[in-house]
Amino acid sequence: MHQTSGDNIVIVEVGPRDGLQNEAAIVSTDVKIELVKRLARAGLDHIEATAFVSPKWVPQMADSTDVMTACASAAELSHVTLSALTPNLKGFEAAITAGSREVAVFASASETFSRRNINCSIDDSFTRFEPIFEAARAVGIPVRGYVSCVIACPYEGAIDPHAVARVSRLLLEKGAREVSLGDTIGVGTPAKVKRMIEAVAAEAPLSVLAGHFHDTYGMGIANIQAALDAGIRVFDSSVGGLGGCPYAAGAAGNVATEEVVYLLQDLGLCRDIDLPRLAETAAWISHITGLTDVSRVTKALMGSSKS
Amino acid sequence: MHQTSGDNIVIVEVGPRDGLQNEAAIVSTDVKIELVKRLARAGLDHIEATAFVSPKWVPQMADSTDVMTACASAAELSHVTLSALTPNLKGFEAAITAGSREVAVFASASETFSRRNINCSIDDSFTRFEPIFEAARAVGIPVRGYVSCVIACPYEGAIDPHAVARVSRLLLEKGAREVSLGDTIGVGTPAKVKRMIEAVAAEAPLSVLAGHFHDTYGMGIANIQAALDAGIRVFDSSVGGLGGCPYAAGAAGNVATEEVVYLLQDLGLCRDIDLPRLAETAAWISHITGLTDVSRVTKALMGSSKS
Repeated sequence: MHQTSGDNIVIVEVGPRDGLQNEAAIVSTDVKIELVKRLARAGLDHIEATAFVSPKWVPQMADSTDVMTACASAAELSHVTLSALTPNLKGFEAAITAGSREVAVFASASETFSRRNINCSIDDSFTRFEPIFEAARAVGIPVRGYVSCVIACPYEGAIDPHAVARVSRLLLEKGAREVSLGDTIGVGTPAKVKRMIEAVAAEAPLSVLAGHFHDTYGMGIANIQAALDAGIRVFDSSVGGLGGCPYAAGAAGNVATEEVVYLLQDLGLCRDIDLPRLAETAAWISHITGLTDVSRVTKALMGSSKS
Repeated sequence: MHQTSGDNIVIVEVGPRDGLQNEAAIVSTDVKIELVKRLARAGLDHIEATAFVSPKWVPQMADSTDVMTACASAAELSHVTLSALTPNLKGFEAAITAGSREVAVFASASETFSRRNINCSIDDSFTRFEPIFEAARAVGIPVRGYVSCVIACPYEGAIDPHAVARVSRLLLEKGAREVSLGDTIGVGTPAKVKRMIEAVAAEAPLSVLAGHFHDTYGMGIANIQAALDAGIRVFDSSVGGLGGCPYAAGAAGNVATEEVVYLLQDLGLCRDIDLPRLAETAAWISHITGLTDVSRVTKALMGSSKS
């Protein structure tokens, strides 16, 4: 799946899901669909468009069927890997019916985070994923596995890199095509990221690992560089740095896609992505969500006022 | 001069000068003095407090004599290396009279930037600095040399690292104690920073070089890490990321001191700095200057609202 022309770097845009899910503002279905289209027009071809989760818990994603159905039937998005987060079989089935081309499941490297976030132990979460992997295999849909808290957990503190490696290996054994390593609370630094990736790479090929960094403490880009140096070639990011951190009120969200692209294009990578167009999209969605602190790249390129 | 206990890293806080000089808001003399004191209480012991420049060109620094006199006579700042930017002999003399313990001169690696910014060629700028170096030697005051546009120039584009190396060497030959390498427009990336430092290090000892990065495109922390990896041990930064970029309206300013400290403390460095206290100071001065996008570390630590 994850192949782009020109180089072997893939950016998985998670703004419409991980970003919007963590913003207070609830944007309309039309805006969400338009966001996915604008991201694709800027050159992004892997987009996590929504999550098939209970609207009771995540009202921001209540229109997942409408968003995915519209995106999957749009001719201009036919080349895009449209994915959706699916925590259970019911969500998986709804996602596939709506036209998802990939699904993602969400595990944790932290026992306490797993219990508090998805109400079961790490091992039990794998039992829950089992029917999803099975159903996905039956219909030929790839499954992406997220691992949260790969550096630290809001409840437990530092997480042993070997715990991250174990969960990653389990996801791959179950049938995940790729494992995205998430620094959920954004406390990672280049040194910690390097150590964590080395531990995971001892149990899984680097080619199936992705880096998912949050910019809570401004370390996002430095961590991407560290992961790149360690051999990671797939990065999750969120247009405009959408999203936040439920464990630090007012904190920054995912690392901004336009800053990741700025870094990578300087290395001659991701040349197919139109950075000014991406910055315009970031400014547009940030305005709609009322986000005042758009990414630095977008500020610099768009000349938006900072004060 | 630049020695701190515990490790060999020095942070030169430039917020009161490079930061406030580039903010639209003009803050009162009392606030400036209080800012220097709060920074020192947070553990910073190298602070560029002001600039002795023409108030016609830089109204933000019109009270330089009052700021420096008050700081230099404050007992609680007696251990702090209080420095000031001094573009000419008149400024130097005023700075010394007011009690500056160090001065700084400002050269450029870009011929066009030099002509537009300080109205003379690079070589002529050294002729201008001559009397400052001479007078400083006579009174035993160390001189710090800034080199601007070490990665690129807003007029010329990319700058040859060898031009940076040449200007750095000249500053050291004239008598500069240290050379601060400034990515004035913040377009640097880790790869470019590494190449530039390698070129400069071929002509000057790493121990007398400092990194001065702006966060215009969000690369500041990644560039600090790259400079650290290349052997740099002195970093300029600005509390709260104060400042901006005159060449990109609304853009971010200097890399934020609290983000630099977050990165370095994770490596066991700069343990004497009180990060929560520094974040409080960042939130305080950002509120006064009307800066809404304080650094990510400060947002995370202070829980300030982002939207």
